[in-house]
Amino acid sequence: MTIETRPRLRRRDGRLPQRAVADLTAALAARFGAKFTTAEAVRLQHGHTLTWIDNAPPDAVVFAETREDVVDAVRICAAHDAPIVPFGAGTSLEGHVNALYGGVSIDCSRMNHVLAVHGEDLDCVVEPGVTRKALNDYLRDTGLFFPVDPGADASIGGMAATRASGTNAVRYGTMKDSVLSLGVVTADGSFLRTASRAKKSAAGYDLTRLFVGSEGTLGIIVEITLRLAGVPEAIAGGHCPFASVRAACDATIETIQSGLPVARIELLDALQVKACNAYSKLGLPETPMLFVEFHGSEESVAEQARRFGEIAAGHGGGPFAWARQAEARSKLWQARHDAYWAATGLRPGARPFATDVCVPISRLADCVEETQRDIVERGLIAPIVGHVGDGNFHVSPLVDMNDASEIERAERFADRLARRAIAMDGTCTGEHGIGQKKIAFLEVEREPEALDLMRRVKLAFDPQNLFNPGKIFRQP
Amino acid sequence: MTIETRPRLRRRDGRLPQRAVADLTAALAARFGAKFTTAEAVRLQHGHTLTWIDNAPPDAVVFAETREDVVDAVRICAAHDAPIVPFGAGTSLEGHVNALYGGVSIDCSRMNHVLAVHGEDLDCVVEPGVTRKALNDYLRDTGLFFPVDPGADASIGGMAATRASGTNAVRYGTMKDSVLSLGVVTADGSFLRTASRAKKSAAGYDLTRLFVGSEGTLGIIVEITLRLAGVPEAIAGGHCPFASVRAACDATIETIQSGLPVARIELLDALQVKACNAYSKLGLPETPMLFVEFHGSEESVAEQARRFGEIAAGHGGGPFAWARQAEARSKLWQARHDAYWAATGLRPGARPFATDVCVPISRLADCVEETQRDIVERGLIAPIVGHVGDGNFHVSPLVDMNDASEIERAERFADRLARRAIAMDGTCTGEHGIGQKKIAFLEVEREPEALDLMRRVKLAFDPQNLFNPGKIFRQP
Repeated sequence: MTIETRPRLRRRDGRLPQRAVADLTAALAARFGAKFTTAEAVRLQHGHTLTWIDNAPPDAVVFAETREDVVDAVRICAAHDAPIVPFGAGTSLEGHVNALYGGVSIDCSRMNHVLAVHGEDLDCVVEPGVTRKALNDYLRDTGLFFPVDPGADASIGGMAATRASGTNAVRYGTMKDSVLSLGVVTADGSFLRTASRAKKSAAGYDLTRLFVGSEGTLGIIVEITLRLAGVPEAIAGGHCPFASVRAACDATIETIQSGLPVARIELLDALQVKACNAYSKLGLPETPMLFVEFHGSEESVAEQARRFGEIAAGHGGGPFAWARQAEARSKLWQARHDAYWAATGLRPGARPFATDVCVPISRLADCVEETQRDIVERGLIAPIVGHVGDGNFHVSPLVDMNDASEIERAERFADRLARRAIAMDGTCTGEHGIGQKKIAFLEVEREPEALDLMRRVKLAFDPQNLFNPGKIFRQP
Repeated sequence: MTIETRPRLRRRDGRLPQRAVADLTAALAARFGAKFTTAEAVRLQHGHTLTWIDNAPPDAVVFAETREDVVDAVRICAAHDAPIVPFGAGTSLEGHVNALYGGVSIDCSRMNHVLAVHGEDLDCVVEPGVTRKALNDYLRDTGLFFPVDPGADASIGGMAATRASGTNAVRYGTMKDSVLSLGVVTADGSFLRTASRAKKSAAGYDLTRLFVGSEGTLGIIVEITLRLAGVPEAIAGGHCPFASVRAACDATIETIQSGLPVARIELLDALQVKACNAYSKLGLPETPMLFVEFHGSEESVAEQARRFGEIAAGHGGGPFAWARQAEARSKLWQARHDAYWAATGLRPGARPFATDVCVPISRLADCVEETQRDIVERGLIAPIVGHVGDGNFHVSPLVDMNDASEIERAERFADRLARRAIAMDGTCTGEHGIGQKKIAFLEVEREPEALDLMRRVKLAFDPQNLFNPGKIFRQP
């Protein structure tokens, strides 16, 4: 799928000519002073830095501190036909922050204020640079928390832009469900809110969900109204070993189907458990494992744990070791969140080739098993960890970045994985997004007619192709 | 907000000239034979028939039986520049099925097959004419049910198109949350699916949510993949009287905030209780009342009922009479679903001027109280009933349709109600939709810039303005 740039100033390769960049940076420097830089170190920090994907720095960085800063930056970029790449915390995994055609990174990390907390309504309004941990620290005394937890301490703006989810999504939903309304700056420098603060509405098109997951290609998110959840009276959690990935998946399916309101249910394959043992000193048996957590009243978490233990035993799993104590649970979940870093420890010097897919839960065991066979056959080192209650899992082959053939092998593996998930009526990405490397898979996943509708939305909202060119859509 | 028609054949008033209608009906008759009619009685049934809104019949009706029928009907209409109005069960309350500019009603009620039930995945695939009751009958032996319940036995296609919700939404969400994917026929007669069957995805724009709530203005929904829920092990429910609407609202807020997973929590004001007593022989005290329902295990519903009773008592409410027996519960909920018809009994010969709004729950008591004062001051008879867990409520002034001044009074009342809700950061409609009569309120609720984005989507998807002209957007 192709988006045609209106080539006002950009060259055929999508970049501005040197002289136009100079004009642009002069205009931005005049408006933003110390909030603007072209320093190479800063530019490199604003390209992708987290995985195997190459760093593509912007020509310049604006540190926006207010909505007006964003509006002015967008207007200056529009006048100079400069690509705009929104930046939050830089924790995305699919190269979203890379400036593939140069232009300006608009860094929103200084827009980090919680604007309002409405305790009775269970919602809050935040600026995009607030991170999820900062928000939960802020909420500590309110009895409320923000449940979406992708692991990394991502910015709320970035999480909305990429439709993030994570471990709690099985119970609390994803950013699609958590965002009540967005304030956005569009391509002509307008500001608008997508919805009211009402918990539901049937008033017109769902612009909120259109911007959630648009990966910075339709506008810049400068304000987010979020649903919050009440801190549960009690939390219990633990780990449960299984003889096989299939048995763990079957236990997960039965758990979900029985209506047990599990708050987290995470699969680690034997290799990932081994990695976590080494990295986080867990001492777990190195066999497929479910990490689970229950939220509720004291009685209900105990009942949930009891019922889960029975279900696991029915699939040959166990013993299910669980606890209410915060320390025991924290150690487990910190290890889960560090799984990505633990994986890198399996092969020092290599980088994780992170990818994710999501399938209907009935196909999860098939998909994971086929993927494991593929890993073995190709001689890859690639631990698997997943939000299996949603049918979503991650695979991260560890790749020697100095070996082009290894990179190619990992790319071919990721290609087969995406196509496998799509063939099972799943998706090439459950939570990481399309970014720059999954465009071809999106083209496999959806019909040309559906891609055409997406392209029409993009053209209708951003005819000049200012916002994050090279993401979601193929460029000319 | 204005959508400009490309006036290929339609006259300045938006209708086709007589001769073009004759050409159109000849083409449709040739393709559809007995599945096509211009009989007046049938045409009148396909305009709005349910409330005070005037009936506006189409020029012709096509009874589509397959996706191919819909594709061909759309192509013939496009070739003849004829407006297209999708029709499901005709239960919408905002005139969505009215053919304001004539054209063709595409009736999907015969597309009433359940195409698949995926028990392990808790989802199903249905044609748009399947009604929610028919679906739940079909699911009876699966242990699963479809929870969205707007009261009327609406079609699933219509429910998706209007972003329907209802009594269970507080626990199970609205159609926004229940639809996993849609199959749609677009303005050029293409068919596409908006998403895979994966429970979550980060792959491209959320076309699913863009079509949910688009009120037939972007395309015709011909297939719906729906999330299902497990039938709870136990259900308990009952009613609880309060001294005031405010006390009932405050009890609701505390219930929601405490994390009690209430499945239904409905407010009836004293007048609505009186109406239900008369219509459904309930014998309840005629005072503000909450109807509540709990889903869970035997222990958990008992615990929820106990906790709710305590909360209600804390606000002077009670006694909370509840039961597990299906008969007692059914009588109550049948009465709740018949509230609309019960209301009409308060003033024989009058018609209900149905409207709904939704506000942040912290403003619910204010909004309901101000509305009650307005009702009293204006001498209206207007019962109030609401899905108060979501901050959503309905008011239906009973109007003598032969008295123009009464209709105008009701319109002014609805105008004040919508503006009141919007001023409280709420919405002019929580679940009925914009349809033909709330366009002006949508223009108050959202900034011109947001309306402009909606208009851009409409123009990008339906440049010829074929689909449901006169709904959501003002016409030239």
